[in-house]
Amino acid sequence: MWETRRIKFCRACGAEARYAIPADDNRERATCTVCSTIHYENPLNVVGTLPVWEDRVLLCKRAIEPRYGLWTLPAGFMELGETTEQGAMRETLEEAGARVELQGLYTLLNVVRIGQVHIFYRARLLDLDLDPGTESLEARLFTEAEIPWDELAFRTVRETLKHYFADRREGRFGLHVGDIG
Amino acid sequence: MWETRRIKFCRACGAEARYAIPADDNRERATCTVCSTIHYENPLNVVGTLPVWEDRVLLCKRAIEPRYGLWTLPAGFMELGETTEQGAMRETLEEAGARVELQGLYTLLNVVRIGQVHIFYRARLLDLDLDPGTESLEARLFTEAEIPWDELAFRTVRETLKHYFADRREGRFGLHVGDIG
Repeated sequence: MWETRRIKFCRACGAEARYAIPADDNRERATCTVCSTIHYENPLNVVGTLPVWEDRVLLCKRAIEPRYGLWTLPAGFMELGETTEQGAMRETLEEAGARVELQGLYTLLNVVRIGQVHIFYRARLLDLDLDPGTESLEARLFTEAEIPWDELAFRTVRETLKHYFADRREGRFGLHVGDIG
Repeated sequence: MWETRRIKFCRACGAEARYAIPADDNRERATCTVCSTIHYENPLNVVGTLPVWEDRVLLCKRAIEPRYGLWTLPAGFMELGETTEQGAMRETLEEAGARVELQGLYTLLNVVRIGQVHIFYRARLLDLDLDPGTESLEARLFTEAEIPWDELAFRTVRETLKHYFADRREGRFGLHVGDIG
């Protein structure tokens, strides 16, 4: 759950911040009681890939919380200084040691409850030299029959994989936009 | 330009924060010198619509900085508690008083220089009862020939409009993903 009212002090001057509705606004924002700086809180993007090699897809077993030991597509928070595409490729390299070529935006899934937007790209693995980083216990390829559906870390990963296998049967990969309740 | 090193004090305890690379990370983050809270800074989403009525599109003349007096598609920062779609419709209502039905994700444009991702949906205006809010001087409909190309507020608005008119000539509206340098 995204936490409201989590800003207690001003990042600019260190004085106490209080939640109030600024002039020309309609929502409560943390506002500094001394320097009047307004601190906005907004959703974050999680960017990742669905890396494919022939009939198999790459998953990583998480070595960190949350969801330690469960399987995920490589993904993580988008950083300043990069595009969604660059972030997705960076996370793929960091979590799986995998180099990919992106094949288009594939899913954009709102996870309102936690204030996140998950954005996945289809990707083609350039080789099989995997090297899971410190965030992954393991990185390996799965056929559709092998996917550990009961051990997936996130609903957006499940959703993205389900779309992929359905689209693959249809022979046509469209963009999927949706919301995770 | 997104500002690095802009967090000087901890939002949780008010003590001084300093930029350092946390363990298990590879980037400098503002870290509290007392309670060790790490403060992440990430890109923000701007969500909006391209509202259409017959052969015309809706633009709003900005009543606020930046780009006071220039024309924009209705758009603004995505808020916690909403989806990208809900945010796009909210901004359309707030800036133009316009009610729309969304017709699909249309552009996703990275603006790395300022740490933003701009996301536009194609939309159908439900009626012509416009009522520009406090952020707009005016809201009105433009044919392609009437678009004030030299008075547009943002490059992502220009890009989205250019795609729209090109796609309309082709009779086919695809998703456009791109980067604004």
